[in-house]
Order: sequence, then C-alpha cells, then structure tokens
Amino acid sequence: MIFSSSLLENAVNEFAKLPGIGKKTALRLVLHLIKQDANDVTQFSEAISRMREELKFCSRCHNISDTVLCNICTSHSRKREMLCVVENIRDVIAIESTQQFNGVYHVLGGIISPLDGIGPEQLTIDSLVKRIENESITEIIFALNANIQGDTTIYYISKKLKAIPVKITTIARGIAFGGELEYADEMTLAKSISNRIPVENYIVSGN
Amino acid sequence: MIFSSSLLENAVNEFAKLPGIGKKTALRLVLHLIKQDANDVTQFSEAISRMREELKFCSRCHNISDTVLCNICTSHSRKREMLCVVENIRDVIAIESTQQFNGVYHVLGGIISPLDGIGPEQLTIDSLVKRIENESITEIIFALNANIQGDTTIYYISKKLKAIPVKITTIARGIAFGGELEYADEMTLAKSISNRIPVENYIVSGN
Repeated sequence: MIFSSSLLENAVNEFAKLPGIGKKTALRLVLHLIKQDANDVTQFSEAISRMREELKFCSRCHNISDTVLCNICTSHSRKREMLCVVENIRDVIAIESTQQFNGVYHVLGGIISPLDGIGPEQLTIDSLVKRIENESITEIIFALNANIQGDTTIYYISKKLKAIPVKITTIARGIAFGGELEYADEMTLAKSISNRIPVENYIVSGN
Repeated sequence: MIFSSSLLENAVNEFAKLPGIGKKTALRLVLHLIKQDANDVTQFSEAISRMREELKFCSRCHNISDTVLCNICTSHSRKREMLCVVENIRDVIAIESTQQFNGVYHVLGGIISPLDGIGPEQLTIDSLVKRIENESITEIIFALNANIQGDTTIYYISKKLKAIPVKITTIARGIAFGGELEYADEMTLAKSISNRIPVENYIVSGN
C-alpha cells in the first residue's frame, strides 16, 4: 500500500501490528477514526495509554486490577474460603459474567505445557500454594480448559497440595446446553455418562 | 462482560466502538496491548491521536495529506494534465499501489446517491469544475465503482464539463484477471465484448 500521508501510514501500521488485523482492516479503522470527533479520538488513545501505564496485577490473585489488590479480593461479599483456579484473566471475565460464582480467584498466568516451553516455575503455582497454606481456604475449584495441558496442571498442583486438608474439585465436563448428542465427541460423551448427576440436582442447578 | 478493572473496561469499550470490532475482539486486542512494551503502546496511541489532530485534506485534490497540498499535487514527476476522479481516499491508495498511474487525482468525497441523501452539492464537484477551468488538464479519467451511482456521477459531471474541451474517459470494465467467463455476470461479459481491444494492445498493456 502506498500512502500520500505519513501520519496516515503510521496510524495504519500501528493498527496492523494488532493480532488478526491486516493492512486493509487497519486502513478501514483509521479512516473511521478520521471521520470521528477529535475528542472521541483523544478519548480512545488516552484510554489505551492510561490502561497500559496504570494497570496493575493484583498481588494476591494475579488478576488484572486498578489497585494493589483487585476488587474481587477486597470485596466483603465474596466467600474467601472458595478459590477458583483459572489459566488467565479472560477466564475470570468469563466466569464473572455468569454471575454464578461468589468465591475468589487465582490466575495461573498460563498452563503447564512442556511443548511450548512453559513449566510450573513460570506460573503462579508457588504463590497459590502459599495462599492455601496461609488463607482459610476450604475448596479449590479448577476451571481449566479440558485438554492434556489442563489435566497435567490439575494433576501437578493437586500433588503439591496433598499434605493440605482442602477439597479439590474441577468444573463439570459434559454435553453443552443446546449441544446435540450425535455430534459430541466420544470422550465428552463418555465422561458425561460416567459423571452423571441425579435429575433433582440438574433441575435445581442447571435450569 | 464483567470486568474487575475500570481501566481495562474503558479500553475495551473504546475498541468496541470501532466498526466490525465486538466486545470479545476488543478484549483480545486490549489483552495483547497489555503484554506489549509500554513504549510500543505509547507509540500506538500517539500515532492515532497525532493522525487525528494533524491530518489535513489537500486543498487542491481533497486527498488526505500532512501538508496544505498533498505530495501527489506538489510532485514534479507527476503529469498535471491527466486527472483521475475517484470516490474516496481508499481509491487513491488502491490506484497508487498499482504504480501504473502518473497523473494527479481529484477526490469527490462520495458519489451521487439520492437514496442515501447524497446530492452533487455535498461532493467536491464545484472544486473539480474550477480545477478543469483553471489548470491545463487535457484528460479526465473516471475511476468510480461500476454501479448506478457511479454511472450517475459520471453522467452528471460530464454534462457539467460539456463546454470545456477536455477528453473524458473511464477505466475499463471487463473480466478480471483470473476470472472465469462462465461465472461472469451478463452485464460485465456484454461490456467486455462490446469494448473489446486489439490483441497487440492487450499484450503490451495487460501482460
């Protein structure tokens, strides 16, 4: 692409650095911003630079936060004894959006994956073990993706926590709501049969 | 989506205002920026705010420009007597990228489209007529989209220029390179037959 303006070219190149955004999409976004009110564009660029400069990670749960401790960790209405272990902050946002979980979180910052060169020492596992030793946590819920890496991580952490009397659970695996049996993979279907639940529980919790 | 950080939420909301970017994509982009170096993010936000504040439109051809006259209008290697009329700056970038056109441009800023409430007075047609009267232009090439609105705009402007002795042409319509005859629409195929070109021209210019 050949531009007649270096200001335009810079802006397009910056947008095109973002994942999943090519040059043509970047140009479309920049031309959209040109048409907007100058204040709106200032607001856009300031929101981004402020976010990058001022954003912190919660020193307790490693979630994204505006302050040293995130608002989930400092909330008085949260059950501190229930700890949900997730891979990243996207998972926190997903679970929070269900409004069904009232405990606290621990963000691992990744998942054990030797193929990608990610070992336990790169994750916040030590800090998790320390929390479980020092805080009065009674249940740990693993909400990790259902794959080999997720299972490895659950296994590794569970082993580390063997000596500590704490209940360890993982979120249910099974057929998704709206999912059709005939298209489900064998693994999911098999697990959903072996982990079947009494109908009275299903009606109370599921629907 | 429920966020634990208002800085994050603001940035996601600002990204989600862009066309074709939903909340989930916005979150993905913001989380990508969080992982980048702080300087890179500053560079990103500054490129955008500078672009919006400092970008001008060329006073002669209405193309996007860093200065009062764009670098195409001020270039000495350009043929000033050949003027290409386009709908918007995206078309200038597309034609410039072919590196086949060495004249100057005139950006209409839109196309006559009564259904969308766009009449000739909202476009830069008066400024185009003035340019043709005052500059020594010998040929006007219309490079507009091949649809009713494009044809209406060509017809309207040609009528306005009736009294001025200037050659008026339009870019060729026909089967695209790599296009297959059997899938071409009748209109394009019919036009490509009636506007057929001698093979010697085709070999020199086309391939």
